[in-house]
Amino acid sequence: MVKLIDVHAMRELLRRDGVQPTLSGLRDYLRADFARWRDFDKSPRMATHWPWGVIELMPVSDGRLYAFKYVNGHLGNPRHGRQTVVAVGLLAEVASGYPLLISEMTVLTALRTAATSALVASLCARAETHCLAVVGAGSQAEFQILAMAEVLSLTEVRCFDIRPPAMAKLRANLSPYGLEVEPCSSIEAAVAGADVVTTATAVKGHRRILRPEQVRPGMHINAIGGDCPGKTELDPQILEAARVIVEYAPQTRIEGEIQQLATDSPVTELWELVAGLSPGRHNEAQVTVFDSVGFALEDYSALRYVRDRSQALGLGEEAALIPRLPRADDLFGAMVGAPPAGSRPRAMQGRHGGD
Amino acid sequence: MVKLIDVHAMRELLRRDGVQPTLSGLRDYLRADFARWRDFDKSPRMATHWPWGVIELMPVSDGRLYAFKYVNGHLGNPRHGRQTVVAVGLLAEVASGYPLLISEMTVLTALRTAATSALVASLCARAETHCLAVVGAGSQAEFQILAMAEVLSLTEVRCFDIRPPAMAKLRANLSPYGLEVEPCSSIEAAVAGADVVTTATAVKGHRRILRPEQVRPGMHINAIGGDCPGKTELDPQILEAARVIVEYAPQTRIEGEIQQLATDSPVTELWELVAGLSPGRHNEAQVTVFDSVGFALEDYSALRYVRDRSQALGLGEEAALIPRLPRADDLFGAMVGAPPAGSRPRAMQGRHGGD
Repeated sequence: MVKLIDVHAMRELLRRDGVQPTLSGLRDYLRADFARWRDFDKSPRMATHWPWGVIELMPVSDGRLYAFKYVNGHLGNPRHGRQTVVAVGLLAEVASGYPLLISEMTVLTALRTAATSALVASLCARAETHCLAVVGAGSQAEFQILAMAEVLSLTEVRCFDIRPPAMAKLRANLSPYGLEVEPCSSIEAAVAGADVVTTATAVKGHRRILRPEQVRPGMHINAIGGDCPGKTELDPQILEAARVIVEYAPQTRIEGEIQQLATDSPVTELWELVAGLSPGRHNEAQVTVFDSVGFALEDYSALRYVRDRSQALGLGEEAALIPRLPRADDLFGAMVGAPPAGSRPRAMQGRHGGD
Repeated sequence: MVKLIDVHAMRELLRRDGVQPTLSGLRDYLRADFARWRDFDKSPRMATHWPWGVIELMPVSDGRLYAFKYVNGHLGNPRHGRQTVVAVGLLAEVASGYPLLISEMTVLTALRTAATSALVASLCARAETHCLAVVGAGSQAEFQILAMAEVLSLTEVRCFDIRPPAMAKLRANLSPYGLEVEPCSSIEAAVAGADVVTTATAVKGHRRILRPEQVRPGMHINAIGGDCPGKTELDPQILEAARVIVEYAPQTRIEGEIQQLATDSPVTELWELVAGLSPGRHNEAQVTVFDSVGFALEDYSALRYVRDRSQALGLGEEAALIPRLPRADDLFGAMVGAPPAGSRPRAMQGRHGGD
């Protein structure tokens, strides 16, 4: 049987464990998996593009478990009351090739993206980090802020979005968590004096959400919105002057902010930081940028986490997606069998029959 | 909601429609889809290999629907009471990127492989085709024979397998369908005088299931077992002397029988036959070989067929795998919401608080 985690089971998991402990738990799984980076068979995701959207398959394996995610990106979906990004993932056992788990990943992707951002911030942000600014109050914003609050000593959270109702939504959602988000009237107002800036917009094109003069020494920039060819958020001058952290360079050079730079521009992969091979920052004045695009390993960690927590909590349904056969070679007998009585199957025509 | 077709729903579909009409229906869908070959965005499947098995993702799209299949191949699985191949597939709407259907594809893969073989045989086999020989009585055999019986005027079906119980299973399964399968004591005995030979073995390595002297003029060979690098069933001399039909040349050159030939060996793609651009055979004496490896387009057709039939028959469950949001940008509000009363979320530390 394959365990099925639908949106109700995921909501229940978050209700029982709490969203902040879930974000912290995911961060622990991410740290553990990035620490054994060389165990994984990695490849850039397989993307199919249309003028109005993209569908991607993101597989990865460490030889014990195999994970992949199906995910779309359709910027026009909200106009039809649909989400820009939805996702479904599968975890399988490599020894047998049998699927173990199918999970909703729309929420799980938001959670693991935020947990990954927090992991990077915990390694790159200065020790004294009090003010977080978030540009873009869409689906990711609450998850990003809650995850950052777990690793930074925040005293101030500001946001800007071109849509005031989105800022009101963000503020209302986070107030019960003791996080008072201040809506700002401009990007300038939001990021002035911020220690960490998260850019999470959904606008297509090469945008300049942040300009070089808005970046102050020691700032950590968490750039999660630039994640496909032709979609970036940062002025390339910011990238050229900063220490750039990426998940998996071959994929990020195609999809991330650094698609704007030369293909040999210096980058550091997250696993090097996690493994202690490279520092998060070289000094207090350095600007650090996490050029987040989302890598399959994060979905692997997230599915592994959901598998463990759903087992512990007894969540999810068993789906009969794989036939269980009394005899391994008798798929037909188990799944089809004899024709129903009264049916008239086409017989052979007899050795000497005509046609 | 995503329609979920599990093995029970698939069994019920086969019971209600009958396996032979299902094979014929699939063949019609395959013919229609191969006829518009140029509409599809095609790529070789994404395979991850281990010494003991392979896991593959097979995506394809025509700009309206996007389909992919997860499928494994683990030759050692039957030793542990498991199947060599299991599969799960997903069909999505390209306009929104939203998944429409998740289906078991272990049975469906056997059905679509057999229907594809029958489609090719209907185009390539001589008009007078009475004797079918099948080498390998594993999971595919019944489906292959039933599908061939729909398009050939069979009067005789023979089989050989190194495991006599597998032949007994095949005979017992097909007898209720009016198909009397004769077990043979050797490959030679099975194929002597046969008009069509299906090879469907699961043995690893470059095998010579068929030798050149066993091939008689006008024979059609349906080679379905050679389907990954290092796994072939036919003597390359047979391929060199025959008209070779493939599904998608870039993939078959990696995985099919023709991996044994030069990379520019002549092949004809199935769509060319379906579109009438090329004949199935040039004369009655020509030997034709279908070098079947299984292409993503076949899964697309199969998922499209299952979607249509399950709708018509009212089969399948709705799975809540995609969150439905009152507000498209409020994923957090719909899926997480406020912390439970009594919980103590981590608040901000106050503007002047320490850490």
